[in-house]
Amino acid sequence: MKKTYREILKWGDKREQKIDDITLNILKKIFSLSKQDLTEKHLLGDNEIKLEKKTSLSEVQINDLKKIAGDENIHTDDFSRANFSYGKYYTELLLLRKGLIANPPDAVIAPKSHNDVVMLVNYCNENMIPIIPVGGQSSVTKGVETPKGGIALDLTKHLNQVLEVNTINMTVKVQAGMFGPAFEKYLNKLGYSCGHFPQSFEFSTVGGWVAAKGAGQASTGYGRIDDMIVALKIVTPEGIIENKDYPSKAEAWDTYPLFIGSEGTLGVITEITMKIRKLRPENTQYASFIFKSFENAVYAMRKIMQADFGKPHLFRISDPEETDIAFKTKGFEEKFSNKVLKALGYLPGKRCLMFVSVEGDTRYTKFVKRQIKKTAKKCKGFYIGSGPTKNWLEQRYSSAYMREPLMDLGVMTDTVETAVTWDNLITLWKSVRAYVKQRNKTVFMSHISHVYSNGANLYFTFLSPTEKRNEENDYTQFHKGLIDTIYNNKGSLSHHHGIGRVLAPWMEAAVSREVISAMQAIKNHFDPNGIMNPSGMLGLK
Amino acid sequence: MKKTYREILKWGDKREQKIDDITLNILKKIFSLSKQDLTEKHLLGDNEIKLEKKTSLSEVQINDLKKIAGDENIHTDDFSRANFSYGKYYTELLLLRKGLIANPPDAVIAPKSHNDVVMLVNYCNENMIPIIPVGGQSSVTKGVETPKGGIALDLTKHLNQVLEVNTINMTVKVQAGMFGPAFEKYLNKLGYSCGHFPQSFEFSTVGGWVAAKGAGQASTGYGRIDDMIVALKIVTPEGIIENKDYPSKAEAWDTYPLFIGSEGTLGVITEITMKIRKLRPENTQYASFIFKSFENAVYAMRKIMQADFGKPHLFRISDPEETDIAFKTKGFEEKFSNKVLKALGYLPGKRCLMFVSVEGDTRYTKFVKRQIKKTAKKCKGFYIGSGPTKNWLEQRYSSAYMREPLMDLGVMTDTVETAVTWDNLITLWKSVRAYVKQRNKTVFMSHISHVYSNGANLYFTFLSPTEKRNEENDYTQFHKGLIDTIYNNKGSLSHHHGIGRVLAPWMEAAVSREVISAMQAIKNHFDPNGIMNPSGMLGLK
Repeated sequence: MKKTYREILKWGDKREQKIDDITLNILKKIFSLSKQDLTEKHLLGDNEIKLEKKTSLSEVQINDLKKIAGDENIHTDDFSRANFSYGKYYTELLLLRKGLIANPPDAVIAPKSHNDVVMLVNYCNENMIPIIPVGGQSSVTKGVETPKGGIALDLTKHLNQVLEVNTINMTVKVQAGMFGPAFEKYLNKLGYSCGHFPQSFEFSTVGGWVAAKGAGQASTGYGRIDDMIVALKIVTPEGIIENKDYPSKAEAWDTYPLFIGSEGTLGVITEITMKIRKLRPENTQYASFIFKSFENAVYAMRKIMQADFGKPHLFRISDPEETDIAFKTKGFEEKFSNKVLKALGYLPGKRCLMFVSVEGDTRYTKFVKRQIKKTAKKCKGFYIGSGPTKNWLEQRYSSAYMREPLMDLGVMTDTVETAVTWDNLITLWKSVRAYVKQRNKTVFMSHISHVYSNGANLYFTFLSPTEKRNEENDYTQFHKGLIDTIYNNKGSLSHHHGIGRVLAPWMEAAVSREVISAMQAIKNHFDPNGIMNPSGMLGLK
Repeated sequence: MKKTYREILKWGDKREQKIDDITLNILKKIFSLSKQDLTEKHLLGDNEIKLEKKTSLSEVQINDLKKIAGDENIHTDDFSRANFSYGKYYTELLLLRKGLIANPPDAVIAPKSHNDVVMLVNYCNENMIPIIPVGGQSSVTKGVETPKGGIALDLTKHLNQVLEVNTINMTVKVQAGMFGPAFEKYLNKLGYSCGHFPQSFEFSTVGGWVAAKGAGQASTGYGRIDDMIVALKIVTPEGIIENKDYPSKAEAWDTYPLFIGSEGTLGVITEITMKIRKLRPENTQYASFIFKSFENAVYAMRKIMQADFGKPHLFRISDPEETDIAFKTKGFEEKFSNKVLKALGYLPGKRCLMFVSVEGDTRYTKFVKRQIKKTAKKCKGFYIGSGPTKNWLEQRYSSAYMREPLMDLGVMTDTVETAVTWDNLITLWKSVRAYVKQRNKTVFMSHISHVYSNGANLYFTFLSPTEKRNEENDYTQFHKGLIDTIYNNKGSLSHHHGIGRVLAPWMEAAVSREVISAMQAIKNHFDPNGIMNPSGMLGLK
């Protein structure tokens, strides 16, 4: 059966998501989409996969590797190698649609066990073969590309089990390749939850969460993945790094955090011990508000985070453009309640939605919701019930799957995100908006979704018709200016997407020559032959 | 005027603390103290300070150093050098009392600025002169000894200012050498608090808190020092490491946390940006409970930490022996209420005190106290009002100052602490008690004072008459067995005292050869000539 590039690019999702009619009509209008745009899919990617580059592994090497991992766990066919050539960065999807895979891996290997990983890393280290650890391939930073070929290490096939649940310590030990839904389902059956729900949840793994230093939608309450990790087990070319599961300790500096955010450059994470919490969805309280301006909403958010009365778990503000789009696509604009809102001074182009959920003990969630409502009211926030937040939660993963149908329309679309202190947040947001709006026909939505006492993230989603036959270049130029604008306005290069190869060129300026030099020394220690996810990652050599 | 060794050993405290009569009578009985013990101070340390070793710095070097830091900031006299020879480890105090200082620093230098530190580090790096950064000298792990001489870098004289308070982000930037009380007073005047109150608070610095990875008495609510740090500025022989004050980020792994717990081995921390919170002591709620057994109290503590209804800030349990001593020394044993407690089954030798405080918003503190009372009641905890907790807080720093008068009596006394998961806590506590109780005439008190969802610390205080004329050896043998027992029963080497030179021999076994090797590579990168707090620190070369 013919295997096409299109099979690969669907964000791992077998469903072909469609854009609903209301949204499509809005986009048609904003982007002046032609009939051709709507009927002929742009860069369909329907060609059969054929790789020009053959595997550069020798027969002897392939046999050696088979001895370690087993015949059935090594694949060198074109589809397998193409399938592990790219993550989900926008230009990677463009290249897939065009059938361009310059540097596929030489083989895809699925180790059966931690010990297999040890043997594979040792073998590759001796033979100078690159290793790229791969989870759900949801990287949006070119973090799982294979510019030097080598082995794509598929951890999801076998290393996908929960090893131990400790109900006294409220921790779980899990293998790196377990996908989010299977992990959460396993815990739910026992009455627990992991508390980590990144937008990539359905197609990302626990090991990927750690390697890319992710943050989930409940991070304001539960913290980022780094706050949840108790212990890691990592295979590096220099040996195994494993820490004990102490609740805390002062034994000099800790070594295992170096691997959080290492994006495969130091070793292969095989096991993770994480905190868990009781699953009590029936206790969760929801609240939604609307504010008269972004500044107002951000002020209320900051006051809530600094009030010391407990914290929401989900905490989110959409800026006016994202709010307007939400009103329009939900058909809310025509409703009577919208007239009331307008009469009260909550005007399109200015108003902002805030979503809140609070998890935990049933009295606690009610208590915190009450305090949040009081604070929001003081800041002129208008309570609009729990419905909008619940609705948002129901579709929280699916917006990422809209990228394919949008690209089919010839619409360039991507997301970029940053962390910023409160005192720089509004300026950063305005500057980035001003930059993006220089481009004609652009939808540019911003939200805040991970909140701290001293600042928050800003998450930007942009849509704009691509320059056909100049797609990569169009995007790359636009993206460069966007990151420059963020960086020049005191935003971090990333809050939770990571650096990969996409943001690597900015790293030295962002973290300093001295920090890069220290990072390189650490890389050189764990990976002296430079086999771990080599070439262009994180600003390292 | 004659300067004696005794001037130095008083924990920096100019007061000569006395043991109150009730306590003294208890000790007399338990330890069978003789009249001579009570009247003649053991190892008084009253000799005049005279160092055998002269400074090994050349005149040229001293002049060069004077050019950098100024004449008035360099001291090479015997008292200054003796004063910076030791921290506050038990055997260090013994050596001081005996007038034995084998390896004083060659000079004490107080840099005027961050730039002075840069120049001093560069100069010492070129000239292979050791540097030992010093804050309040409260190390109880031989962390500020100078076995190879060199420069004791006194950061407290000039680098002791708040540089900036950001009331939008709720952060403060402070120089490393500022002492706890001055720092807290500065913040209090503006209506804020730092939230970090280690027992060494009165004689420790912000930089010391970071370098030793400390935890304060409110750590259950506010976290350890690592949870409070937003940014650090550090001078290393390889250059300056400084991170930005983002609330969070995913720019590969972070480098500045390597310096948290580095104990001076990688560089000199000069500036710290920390979170602050509103000062609202009037909102704080206090609660005290008594439980029928240690197991009961620990169970209640765990349930409270895993309930997800908010957290106490101070959270503490004393084991039966510590509880009994508290009852006796407070004269509570004779009171009527004690008869009631006994009648209710809260028996001496078994019962345990629990102290709680909750800080923050006034409704929050009341809410959380209510939930804690309910949970404690379910676990058969008896509420005994807010008084005992308040009383404990009033004298929370002073018990450390009892060491000198105890040593005057010939009583060996020290504290050791560890972190342990819930499932190992009771076994560890019992094993350590069994070990200590092999020794005759021993008071051995344990408490838990830093609590997490997955475990807690255990803090041990022991008192026992020393073998006179064999004091160091007596202590060292006893201490070795104690640490072995902790380690063999799954406790960490330290929860918040750090490693220094005292626990260094256990490090490789505790963290693994691979981790030590990685730590050494990091040390070699930042400090290629090995000038930073050299010789025997943290298990490193």
